[in-house]
Amino acid sequence: MTRPPLLIESPQNPQFKLWESALESRGLKKNGKFLLAGLKTVPEALRHHPERFERVLFTDPAQITGWRLPPGVEPVQLAPALFRTLDVSGTGFPLLVGTVPKMPAIDLSQPPQGLELLCALGDPSNLGALLRSAAAFGVSRIVLLEGAAHPFHPKCLRAASNAQFALTLLRGPRWAAVNEAAGPLYALDGGGEDLTRFDWPADMRLILGEEGQGVPADCPATRLSVPTTGAVESLNATVAVSVALFARYASVKL
Amino acid sequence: MTRPPLLIESPQNPQFKLWESALESRGLKKNGKFLLAGLKTVPEALRHHPERFERVLFTDPAQITGWRLPPGVEPVQLAPALFRTLDVSGTGFPLLVGTVPKMPAIDLSQPPQGLELLCALGDPSNLGALLRSAAAFGVSRIVLLEGAAHPFHPKCLRAASNAQFALTLLRGPRWAAVNEAAGPLYALDGGGEDLTRFDWPADMRLILGEEGQGVPADCPATRLSVPTTGAVESLNATVAVSVALFARYASVKL
Repeated sequence: MTRPPLLIESPQNPQFKLWESALESRGLKKNGKFLLAGLKTVPEALRHHPERFERVLFTDPAQITGWRLPPGVEPVQLAPALFRTLDVSGTGFPLLVGTVPKMPAIDLSQPPQGLELLCALGDPSNLGALLRSAAAFGVSRIVLLEGAAHPFHPKCLRAASNAQFALTLLRGPRWAAVNEAAGPLYALDGGGEDLTRFDWPADMRLILGEEGQGVPADCPATRLSVPTTGAVESLNATVAVSVALFARYASVKL
Repeated sequence: MTRPPLLIESPQNPQFKLWESALESRGLKKNGKFLLAGLKTVPEALRHHPERFERVLFTDPAQITGWRLPPGVEPVQLAPALFRTLDVSGTGFPLLVGTVPKMPAIDLSQPPQGLELLCALGDPSNLGALLRSAAAFGVSRIVLLEGAAHPFHPKCLRAASNAQFALTLLRGPRWAAVNEAAGPLYALDGGGEDLTRFDWPADMRLILGEEGQGVPADCPATRLSVPTTGAVESLNATVAVSVALFARYASVKL
Protein backbone atom coordinates (compact mmCIF):
# COMPACT_ATOMS: atom_id res chain seq x y z
CA MET A 1 0.00 0.00 0.00
CA THR A 2 1.31 3.43 -0.88
CA ARG A 3 -0.91 5.42 1.47
CA PRO A 4 -2.59 4.65 4.81
CA PRO A 5 -6.03 3.09 4.44
CA LEU A 6 -9.27 4.85 5.22
CA LEU A 7 -10.05 4.61 8.95
CA ILE A 8 -13.65 4.42 10.25
CA GLU A 9 -14.30 4.81 13.97
CA SER A 10 -17.92 5.95 14.27
CA PRO A 11 -20.89 3.56 14.27
CA GLN A 12 -22.82 6.42 12.63
CA ASN A 13 -20.57 6.37 9.58
CA PRO A 14 -22.86 5.79 6.55
CA GLN A 15 -20.54 3.22 4.98
CA PHE A 16 -20.32 1.26 8.21
CA LYS A 17 -24.11 1.33 8.52
CA LEU A 18 -24.39 0.04 4.95
CA TRP A 19 -22.11 -2.89 5.76
CA GLU A 20 -23.94 -3.56 9.02
CA SER A 21 -27.16 -3.90 7.01
CA ALA A 22 -25.58 -6.90 5.23
CA LEU A 23 -25.99 -8.95 8.42
CA GLU A 24 -29.76 -9.24 7.86
CA SER A 25 -31.83 -10.39 4.88
CA ARG A 26 -33.70 -7.09 4.68
CA GLY A 27 -30.52 -5.05 4.38
CA LEU A 28 -29.07 -7.50 1.87
CA LYS A 29 -32.12 -7.05 -0.33
CA LYS A 30 -32.30 -3.29 0.11
CA ASN A 31 -28.62 -2.36 -0.25
CA GLY A 32 -27.19 -5.26 -2.22
CA LYS A 33 -23.92 -5.59 -0.30
CA PHE A 34 -22.70 -8.74 1.46
CA LEU A 35 -19.89 -9.56 3.89
CA LEU A 36 -17.65 -12.57 3.41
CA ALA A 37 -15.74 -13.96 6.43
CA GLY A 38 -13.41 -16.90 6.87
CA LEU A 39 -9.71 -17.78 7.09
CA LYS A 40 -9.91 -19.99 4.00
CA THR A 41 -12.81 -18.48 2.08
CA VAL A 42 -11.63 -14.84 2.11
CA PRO A 43 -8.22 -15.42 0.46
CA GLU A 44 -9.72 -17.97 -1.92
CA ALA A 45 -12.53 -15.63 -3.02
CA LEU A 46 -10.14 -12.72 -3.46
CA ARG A 47 -7.91 -14.86 -5.67
CA HIS A 48 -10.58 -16.48 -7.83
CA HIS A 49 -13.39 -13.88 -7.86
CA PRO A 50 -11.74 -10.46 -7.33
CA GLU A 51 -14.39 -8.71 -9.47
CA ARG A 52 -17.04 -9.58 -6.86
CA PHE A 53 -15.50 -7.38 -4.15
CA GLU A 54 -14.92 -3.69 -3.43
CA ARG A 55 -13.54 -3.44 0.13
CA VAL A 56 -11.42 -5.41 2.56
CA LEU A 57 -12.10 -4.56 6.22
CA PHE A 58 -9.70 -5.09 9.15
CA THR A 59 -8.64 -3.58 12.46
CA ASP A 60 -4.86 -3.55 11.99
CA PRO A 61 -3.09 -2.86 8.67
CA ALA A 62 -0.61 -5.61 9.59
CA GLN A 63 -3.41 -8.11 8.97
CA ILE A 64 -3.22 -7.48 5.23
CA THR A 65 0.52 -7.00 4.90
CA GLY A 66 1.67 -8.88 1.82
CA TRP A 67 -1.87 -9.19 0.37
CA ARG A 68 -2.01 -8.32 -3.30
CA LEU A 69 -5.29 -6.46 -3.47
CA PRO A 70 -6.96 -6.37 -6.90
CA PRO A 71 -7.38 -2.82 -8.34
CA GLY A 72 -11.07 -2.49 -7.42
CA VAL A 73 -10.68 -3.60 -3.78
CA GLU A 74 -10.00 -0.77 -1.33
CA PRO A 75 -8.58 -1.42 2.18
CA VAL A 76 -10.57 0.06 5.08
CA GLN A 77 -9.47 0.03 8.70
CA LEU A 78 -12.24 -0.21 11.33
CA ALA A 79 -12.15 0.52 15.04
CA PRO A 80 -12.10 -2.88 16.84
CA ALA A 81 -15.66 -2.53 18.21
CA LEU A 82 -17.02 -1.82 14.72
CA PHE A 83 -15.10 -4.73 13.24
CA ARG A 84 -16.45 -7.12 15.86
CA THR A 85 -19.99 -6.02 15.04
CA LEU A 86 -19.51 -7.12 11.43
CA ASP A 87 -17.43 -10.24 12.17
CA VAL A 88 -20.41 -12.24 13.48
CA SER A 89 -18.61 -15.59 13.28
CA GLY A 90 -15.73 -14.17 15.33
CA THR A 91 -13.06 -15.05 12.77
CA GLY A 92 -10.78 -12.11 13.73
CA PHE A 93 -9.71 -12.22 10.08
CA PRO A 94 -10.21 -9.51 7.41
CA LEU A 95 -13.72 -9.35 5.88
CA LEU A 96 -14.62 -8.71 2.25
CA VAL A 97 -17.45 -6.46 1.12
CA GLY A 98 -19.03 -7.65 -2.12
CA THR A 99 -21.99 -6.82 -4.34
CA VAL A 100 -24.93 -9.23 -4.36
CA PRO A 101 -25.23 -10.39 -7.98
CA LYS A 102 -28.42 -9.87 -9.92
CA MET A 103 -30.63 -12.93 -9.56
CA PRO A 104 -33.00 -12.89 -12.55
CA ALA A 105 -36.46 -14.44 -12.26
CA ILE A 106 -36.74 -17.83 -13.94
CA ASP A 107 -39.55 -18.70 -16.33
CA LEU A 108 -40.53 -22.18 -15.18
CA SER A 109 -42.76 -22.70 -18.22
CA GLN A 110 -39.52 -23.11 -20.21
CA PRO A 111 -37.75 -26.48 -20.06
CA PRO A 112 -34.84 -26.93 -17.61
CA GLN A 113 -31.21 -26.35 -18.62
CA GLY A 114 -28.97 -28.93 -17.00
CA LEU A 115 -29.78 -29.98 -13.46
CA GLU A 116 -31.84 -27.26 -11.78
CA LEU A 117 -32.49 -27.37 -8.04
CA LEU A 118 -35.72 -25.65 -6.94
CA CYS A 119 -35.58 -24.94 -3.25
CA ALA A 120 -37.40 -23.18 -0.43
CA LEU A 121 -35.05 -23.85 2.50
CA GLY A 122 -35.70 -21.05 4.99
CA ASP A 123 -32.72 -21.65 7.27
CA PRO A 124 -29.59 -19.90 5.90
CA SER A 125 -27.20 -22.54 7.30
CA ASN A 126 -29.17 -25.35 5.66
CA LEU A 127 -29.30 -23.45 2.38
CA GLY A 128 -25.53 -22.87 2.57
CA ALA A 129 -24.77 -26.56 3.11
CA LEU A 130 -27.01 -27.38 0.16
CA LEU A 131 -25.26 -24.85 -2.12
CA ARG A 132 -21.93 -26.38 -1.17
CA SER A 133 -23.06 -29.86 -2.22
CA ALA A 134 -24.74 -28.43 -5.35
CA ALA A 135 -21.49 -26.82 -6.51
CA ALA A 136 -19.49 -29.94 -5.63
CA PHE A 137 -21.76 -32.21 -7.66
CA GLY A 138 -22.37 -30.15 -10.78
CA VAL A 139 -25.78 -28.53 -10.34
CA SER A 140 -26.09 -25.91 -13.09
CA ARG A 141 -28.74 -23.59 -11.64
CA ILE A 142 -30.28 -22.92 -8.25
CA VAL A 143 -33.84 -21.58 -8.22
CA LEU A 144 -34.69 -19.88 -4.92
CA LEU A 145 -38.42 -20.08 -4.34
CA GLU A 146 -40.28 -17.52 -2.25
CA GLY A 147 -39.49 -18.08 1.42
CA ALA A 148 -35.97 -19.37 0.80
CA ALA A 149 -33.23 -17.80 2.92
CA HIS A 150 -31.06 -15.11 1.31
CA PRO A 151 -28.08 -16.85 -0.31
CA PHE A 152 -25.68 -14.09 0.83
CA HIS A 153 -26.78 -14.11 4.48
CA PRO A 154 -23.65 -14.46 6.67
CA LYS A 155 -24.75 -17.89 7.94
CA CYS A 156 -25.39 -19.10 4.40
CA LEU A 157 -22.00 -17.84 3.23
CA ARG A 158 -20.34 -19.51 6.20
CA ALA A 159 -21.88 -22.92 5.44
CA ALA A 160 -21.40 -22.73 1.67
CA SER A 161 -17.61 -22.44 1.44
CA ASN A 162 -17.76 -20.01 -1.56
CA ALA A 163 -20.26 -22.13 -3.50
CA GLN A 164 -22.26 -18.93 -4.20
CA PHE A 165 -19.57 -17.81 -6.64
CA ALA A 166 -19.66 -21.08 -8.59
CA LEU A 167 -23.43 -21.30 -9.11
CA THR A 168 -26.06 -19.51 -11.19
CA LEU A 169 -28.68 -18.26 -8.75
CA LEU A 170 -32.20 -17.43 -9.97
CA ARG A 171 -35.35 -16.24 -8.25
CA GLY A 172 -38.36 -18.51 -8.49
CA PRO A 173 -42.07 -18.14 -7.82
CA ARG A 174 -43.93 -19.15 -4.70
CA TRP A 175 -43.96 -22.78 -3.69
CA ALA A 176 -47.44 -23.57 -5.07
CA ALA A 177 -46.46 -22.47 -8.60
CA VAL A 178 -43.88 -25.27 -8.80
CA ASN A 179 -46.68 -27.67 -9.66
CA GLU A 180 -46.91 -25.96 -13.07
CA ALA A 181 -43.18 -26.04 -13.86
CA ALA A 182 -42.11 -27.66 -17.12
CA GLY A 183 -40.47 -31.05 -16.55
CA PRO A 184 -38.84 -33.47 -16.30
CA LEU A 185 -39.71 -32.81 -12.64
CA TYR A 186 -38.45 -34.86 -9.69
CA ALA A 187 -38.61 -34.80 -5.90
CA LEU A 188 -37.01 -36.86 -3.12
CA ASP A 189 -39.41 -38.99 -1.10
CA GLY A 190 -38.90 -42.04 1.09
CA GLY A 191 -41.44 -44.00 -0.94
CA GLY A 192 -40.07 -43.19 -4.40
CA GLU A 193 -38.07 -45.11 -6.98
CA ASP A 194 -34.58 -46.23 -5.85
CA LEU A 195 -32.32 -43.56 -7.31
CA THR A 196 -29.36 -45.93 -7.66
CA ARG A 197 -31.34 -47.55 -10.49
CA PHE A 198 -32.42 -44.29 -12.05
CA ASP A 199 -31.29 -43.08 -15.45
CA TRP A 200 -30.69 -39.35 -14.83
CA PRO A 201 -31.74 -37.09 -17.72
CA ALA A 202 -29.28 -34.33 -18.65
CA ASP A 203 -31.95 -31.64 -18.20
CA MET A 204 -34.23 -31.89 -15.18
CA ARG A 205 -35.67 -30.06 -12.19
CA LEU A 206 -35.30 -31.43 -8.66
CA ILE A 207 -37.64 -29.92 -6.07
CA LEU A 208 -36.87 -29.47 -2.37
CA GLY A 209 -39.50 -28.31 0.08
CA GLU A 210 -39.04 -26.40 3.28
CA GLU A 211 -37.30 -28.06 6.22
CA GLY A 212 -39.34 -30.86 7.73
CA GLN A 213 -41.99 -30.73 5.02
CA GLY A 214 -42.26 -33.10 2.12
CA VAL A 215 -43.41 -32.21 -1.35
CA PRO A 216 -47.22 -31.71 -1.47
CA ALA A 217 -49.23 -34.77 -2.46
CA ASP A 218 -50.62 -33.05 -5.57
CA CYS A 219 -47.18 -32.12 -6.92
CA PRO A 220 -46.75 -33.91 -10.27
CA ALA A 221 -43.02 -34.63 -9.71
CA THR A 222 -41.72 -38.19 -10.03
CA ARG A 223 -40.55 -39.40 -6.61
CA LEU A 224 -37.02 -40.71 -6.11
CA SER A 225 -35.66 -42.24 -2.91
CA VAL A 226 -32.23 -42.86 -1.39
CA PRO A 227 -32.02 -46.56 -0.47
CA THR A 228 -31.30 -47.19 3.22
CA THR A 229 -31.38 -50.04 5.72
CA GLY A 230 -34.62 -48.66 7.16
CA ALA A 231 -33.06 -48.50 10.65
CA VAL A 232 -33.96 -44.80 10.84
CA GLU A 233 -37.15 -43.37 9.42
CA SER A 234 -35.47 -40.76 7.26
CA LEU A 235 -32.19 -39.07 6.44
CA ASN A 236 -31.28 -35.51 7.32
CA ALA A 237 -32.66 -33.36 4.46
CA THR A 238 -29.29 -31.88 3.43
CA VAL A 239 -27.70 -35.32 3.56
CA ALA A 240 -30.49 -36.84 1.43
CA VAL A 241 -30.16 -34.21 -1.30
CA SER A 242 -26.36 -34.36 -1.22
CA VAL A 243 -26.43 -38.13 -1.63
CA ALA A 244 -28.86 -37.81 -4.55
CA LEU A 245 -26.66 -35.19 -6.25
CA PHE A 246 -23.60 -37.37 -5.68
CA ALA A 247 -25.35 -40.46 -7.10
CA ARG A 248 -26.21 -38.52 -10.24
CA TYR A 249 -22.74 -37.00 -10.52
CA ALA A 250 -21.06 -40.39 -10.09
CA SER A 251 -23.34 -42.05 -12.67
CA VAL A 252 -22.86 -39.24 -15.24
CA LYS A 253 -19.10 -39.21 -14.66
CA LEU A 254 -18.69 -42.95 -15.24
CA MET B 1 -54.55 -45.61 33.40
CA THR B 2 -56.25 -46.91 36.51
CA ARG B 3 -54.91 -44.31 38.94
CA PRO B 4 -53.78 -40.69 38.57
CA PRO B 5 -50.12 -40.34 37.68
CA LEU B 6 -47.46 -39.08 40.05
CA LEU B 7 -47.37 -35.26 40.06
CA ILE B 8 -44.13 -33.32 40.58
CA GLU B 9 -44.28 -29.58 41.21
CA SER B 10 -41.07 -28.70 43.03
CA PRO B 11 -37.77 -27.99 41.25
CA GLN B 12 -36.10 -29.44 44.35
CA ASN B 13 -37.68 -32.85 43.79
CA PRO B 14 -34.78 -35.38 43.56
CA GLN B 15 -36.27 -37.17 40.55
CA PHE B 16 -36.74 -33.90 38.69
CA LYS B 17 -33.16 -32.92 39.49
CA LEU B 18 -31.97 -36.27 38.16
CA TRP B 19 -33.79 -35.70 34.86
CA GLU B 20 -32.52 -32.15 34.67
CA SER B 21 -28.97 -33.50 34.87
CA ALA B 22 -29.62 -35.33 31.58
CA LEU B 23 -29.46 -31.99 29.73
CA GLU B 24 -25.67 -31.84 30.15
CA SER B 25 -22.90 -34.30 29.32
CA ARG B 26 -21.65 -34.37 32.91
CA GLY B 27 -25.02 -35.39 34.29
CA LEU B 28 -25.50 -37.96 31.53
CA LYS B 29 -22.21 -39.59 32.49
CA LYS B 30 -22.80 -39.37 36.23
CA ASN B 31 -26.44 -40.46 36.45
CA GLY B 32 -26.93 -42.46 33.25
CA LYS B 33 -30.41 -41.16 32.38
CA PHE B 34 -31.35 -39.45 29.10
CA LEU B 35 -34.38 -37.52 27.86
CA LEU B 36 -35.91 -38.20 24.45
CA ALA B 37 -38.07 -35.49 22.83
CA GLY B 38 -39.89 -35.30 19.51
CA LEU B 39 -43.33 -35.71 17.96
CA LYS B 40 -42.17 -38.56 15.74
CA THR B 41 -39.26 -40.00 17.70
CA VAL B 42 -41.06 -40.42 21.06
CA PRO B 43 -43.93 -42.63 19.78
CA GLU B 44 -41.57 -44.53 17.49
CA ALA B 45 -39.06 -45.25 20.28
CA LEU B 46 -41.82 -46.31 22.67
CA ARG B 47 -43.16 -48.73 20.07
CA HIS B 48 -39.87 -50.25 18.94
CA HIS B 49 -37.63 -49.93 22.01
CA PRO B 50 -39.93 -49.96 25.07
CA GLU B 51 -37.29 -51.69 27.22
CA ARG B 52 -35.07 -48.59 26.95
CA PHE B 53 -37.47 -46.35 28.92
CA GLU B 54 -38.82 -46.00 32.45
CA ARG B 55 -40.88 -42.76 32.54
CA VAL B 56 -43.04 -40.64 30.29
CA LEU B 57 -43.24 -36.98 31.37
CA PHE B 58 -46.04 -34.52 30.47
CA THR B 59 -47.96 -31.54 31.86
CA ASP B 60 -51.51 -32.70 31.16
CA PRO B 61 -52.71 -36.34 31.41
CA ALA B 62 -54.81 -35.71 28.27
CA GLN B 63 -51.52 -35.64 26.32
CA ILE B 64 -51.10 -39.38 26.78
CA THR B 65 -54.73 -40.42 26.54
CA GLY B 66 -54.91 -43.53 24.39
CA TRP B 67 -51.18 -44.28 24.70
CA ARG B 68 -50.50 -47.91 25.48
CA LEU B 69 -47.62 -47.60 27.92
CA PRO B 70 -45.36 -50.66 28.21
CA PRO B 71 -45.33 -52.24 31.73
CA GLY B 72 -42.01 -50.68 32.79
CA VAL B 73 -42.87 -47.11 31.73
CA GLU B 74 -44.50 -45.02 34.44
CA PRO B 75 -46.42 -41.79 33.65
CA VAL B 76 -45.32 -38.68 35.55
CA GLN B 77 -47.08 -35.32 35.44
CA LEU B 78 -44.88 -32.22 35.81
CA ALA B 79 -45.81 -28.64 36.62
CA PRO B 80 -45.58 -26.66 33.34
CA ALA B 81 -42.47 -24.71 34.39
CA LEU B 82 -40.63 -27.93 35.26
CA PHE B 83 -41.66 -29.53 31.98
CA ARG B 84 -40.44 -26.56 29.98
CA THR B 85 -37.06 -26.78 31.71
CA LEU B 86 -36.64 -30.34 30.42
CA ASP B 87 -38.23 -29.80 26.99
CA VAL B 88 -35.24 -27.84 25.63
CA SER B 89 -36.34 -28.13 21.99
CA GLY B 90 -39.77 -26.75 22.90
CA THR B 91 -41.70 -29.68 21.45
CA GLY B 92 -44.60 -29.36 23.92
CA PHE B 93 -44.92 -33.13 23.50
CA PRO B 94 -44.40 -35.82 26.18
CA LEU B 95 -40.76 -36.70 26.95
CA LEU B 96 -39.31 -40.14 27.64
CA VAL B 97 -36.76 -40.89 30.35
CA GLY B 98 -34.40 -43.69 29.37
CA THR B 99 -31.26 -45.38 30.67
CA VAL B 100 -27.99 -44.71 28.87
CA PRO B 101 -26.79 -48.13 27.67
CA LYS B 102 -23.43 -49.48 28.73
CA MET B 103 -20.81 -48.53 26.15
CA PRO B 104 -17.97 -51.03 26.55
CA ALA B 105 -14.40 -50.01 25.69
CA ILE B 106 -13.20 -51.39 22.36
CA ASP B 107 -9.87 -53.14 21.97
CA LEU B 108 -8.52 -51.63 18.77
CA SER B 109 -5.70 -54.15 18.59
CA GLN B 110 -8.37 -56.67 17.53
CA PRO B 111 -9.50 -56.62 13.88
CA PRO B 112 -12.70 -54.72 12.97
CA GLN B 113 -16.11 -56.42 12.83
CA GLY B 114 -18.11 -55.08 9.93
CA LEU B 115 -17.83 -51.38 9.15
CA GLU B 116 -16.66 -49.52 12.25
CA LEU B 117 -16.71 -45.74 12.39
CA LEU B 118 -14.11 -44.18 14.72
CA CYS B 119 -15.08 -40.64 15.49
CA ALA B 120 -14.19 -37.67 17.65
CA LEU B 121 -16.90 -35.16 16.65
CA GLY B 122 -17.26 -32.80 19.60
CA ASP B 123 -20.46 -31.07 18.50
CA PRO B 124 -23.52 -33.09 19.60
CA SER B 125 -25.63 -31.98 16.59
CA ASN B 126 -22.90 -33.04 14.14
CA LEU B 127 -22.49 -36.36 15.95
CA GLY B 128 -26.27 -36.90 15.80
CA ALA B 129 -26.44 -36.27 12.06
CA LEU B 130 -23.56 -38.70 11.58
CA LEU B 131 -25.27 -41.41 13.67
CA ARG B 132 -28.40 -40.99 11.57
CA SER B 133 -26.48 -41.60 8.33
CA ALA B 134 -24.53 -44.45 9.94
CA ALA B 135 -27.72 -46.29 10.88
CA ALA B 136 -29.27 -45.58 7.46
CA PHE B 137 -26.28 -47.02 5.61
CA GLY B 138 -25.47 -50.10 7.65
CA VAL B 139 -22.55 -49.16 9.91
CA SER B 140 -22.19 -51.96 12.46
CA ARG B 141 -20.32 -50.22 15.28
CA ILE B 142 -19.59 -46.65 16.32
CA VAL B 143 -16.42 -46.05 18.31
CA LEU B 144 -16.54 -42.78 20.23
CA LEU B 145 -13.02 -41.51 20.76
CA GLU B 146 -12.08 -39.29 23.69
CA GLY B 147 -13.45 -35.80 23.13
CA ALA B 148 -16.50 -36.96 21.16
CA ALA B 149 -19.83 -35.48 22.25
CA HIS B 150 -22.10 -37.63 24.43
CA PRO B 151 -24.34 -39.66 22.10
CA PHE B 152 -27.37 -39.16 24.39
CA HIS B 153 -27.01 -35.38 24.69
CA PRO B 154 -30.39 -33.76 23.83
CA LYS B 155 -28.95 -32.11 20.71
CA CYS B 156 -27.43 -35.37 19.54
CA LEU B 157 -30.72 -37.23 20.10
CA ARG B 158 -32.58 -34.52 18.23
CA ALA B 159 -30.34 -34.75 15.15
CA ALA B 160 -30.11 -38.55 15.12
CA SER B 161 -33.78 -39.49 14.69
CA ASN B 162 -33.49 -42.55 17.01
CA ALA B 163 -30.33 -43.87 15.34
CA GLN B 164 -28.84 -44.41 18.84
CA PHE B 165 -31.19 -47.37 19.35
CA ALA B 166 -30.12 -49.05 16.10
CA LEU B 167 -26.35 -48.86 16.59
CA THR B 168 -23.73 -50.53 18.77
CA LEU B 169 -21.89 -47.74 20.58
CA LEU B 170 -18.42 -48.34 22.01
CA ARG B 171 -15.92 -46.18 23.84
CA GLY B 172 -12.57 -45.69 22.17
CA PRO B 173 -9.18 -44.38 23.26
CA ARG B 174 -7.80 -40.90 22.70
CA TRP B 175 -7.32 -39.69 19.17
CA ALA B 176 -3.55 -40.36 19.02
CA ALA B 177 -4.03 -44.06 19.82
CA VAL B 178 -5.97 -44.55 16.58
CA ASN B 179 -2.67 -44.74 14.72
CA GLU B 180 -2.10 -48.14 16.34
CA ALA B 181 -5.52 -49.60 15.53
CA ALA B 182 -5.66 -52.89 13.64
CA GLY B 183 -6.72 -52.41 10.03
CA PRO B 184 -7.92 -52.30 7.33
CA LEU B 185 -7.89 -48.60 8.27
CA TYR B 186 -9.31 -45.79 6.11
CA ALA B 187 -9.89 -42.04 6.31
CA LEU B 188 -11.58 -39.48 4.06
CA ASP B 189 -9.26 -36.93 2.49
CA GLY B 190 -9.64 -34.67 -0.54
CA GLY B 191 -6.45 -36.08 -2.03
CA GLY B 192 -7.26 -39.78 -1.61
CA GLU B 193 -8.35 -42.56 -3.94
CA ASP B 194 -11.72 -42.00 -5.67
CA LEU B 195 -14.12 -44.01 -3.52
CA THR B 196 -16.47 -44.74 -6.42
CA ARG B 197 -13.72 -47.05 -7.73
CA PHE B 198 -12.97 -48.59 -4.36
CA ASP B 199 -13.65 -52.21 -3.49
CA TRP B 200 -15.00 -51.96 0.08
CA PRO B 201 -13.85 -54.75 2.42
CA ALA B 202 -16.53 -56.29 4.64
CA ASP B 203 -14.54 -55.52 7.80
CA MET B 204 -12.85 -52.14 8.06
CA ARG B 205 -12.36 -49.06 10.21
CA LEU B 206 -13.16 -45.57 8.91
CA ILE B 207 -11.66 -42.69 10.91
CA LEU B 208 -13.19 -39.23 11.30
CA GLY B 209 -11.35 -36.43 13.01
CA GLU B 210 -12.75 -33.51 14.91
CA GLU B 211 -14.69 -30.83 13.06
CA GLY B 212 -12.51 -28.78 10.74
CA GLN B 213 -9.45 -30.97 11.28
CA GLY B 214 -8.21 -33.60 8.92
CA VAL B 215 -6.60 -36.87 9.89
CA PRO B 216 -2.99 -36.33 11.11
CA ALA B 217 -0.30 -36.75 8.46
CA ASP B 218 1.32 -39.66 10.31
CA CYS B 219 -1.90 -41.67 10.51
CA PRO B 220 -1.35 -44.92 8.58
CA ALA B 221 -4.93 -45.00 7.20
CA THR B 222 -5.48 -45.32 3.45
CA ARG B 223 -7.04 -42.10 2.14
CA LEU B 224 -10.31 -42.16 0.20
CA SER B 225 -11.96 -39.17 -1.46
CA VAL B 226 -15.45 -38.27 -2.67
CA PRO B 227 -15.15 -37.16 -6.32
CA THR B 228 -16.43 -33.62 -6.95
CA THR B 229 -16.30 -30.97 -9.67
CA GLY B 230 -13.70 -29.07 -7.64
CA ALA B 231 -15.89 -25.94 -7.67
CA VAL B 232 -15.73 -25.83 -3.87
CA GLU B 233 -12.64 -26.73 -1.91
CA SER B 234 -14.33 -29.33 0.26
CA LEU B 235 -17.65 -30.84 1.27
CA ASN B 236 -19.35 -30.36 4.63
CA ALA B 237 -17.85 -33.07 6.91
CA THR B 238 -21.17 -34.79 7.70
CA VAL B 239 -22.11 -34.72 4.01
CA ALA B 240 -18.74 -36.21 2.99
CA VAL B 241 -19.01 -39.11 5.43
CA SER B 242 -22.67 -39.71 4.56
CA VAL B 243 -21.85 -39.85 0.86
CA ALA B 244 -19.01 -42.30 1.55
CA LEU B 245 -21.27 -44.54 3.65
CA PHE B 246 -23.95 -44.39 0.94
CA ALA B 247 -21.43 -45.27 -1.80
CA ARG B 248 -20.34 -48.32 0.19
CA TYR B 249 -23.93 -49.33 1.01
CA ALA B 250 -25.01 -48.98 -2.63
CA SER B 251 -22.02 -51.00 -3.90
CA VAL B 252 -22.51 -53.77 -1.33
CA LYS B 253 -26.26 -53.91 -2.00
CA LEU B 254 -25.85 -54.28 -5.78
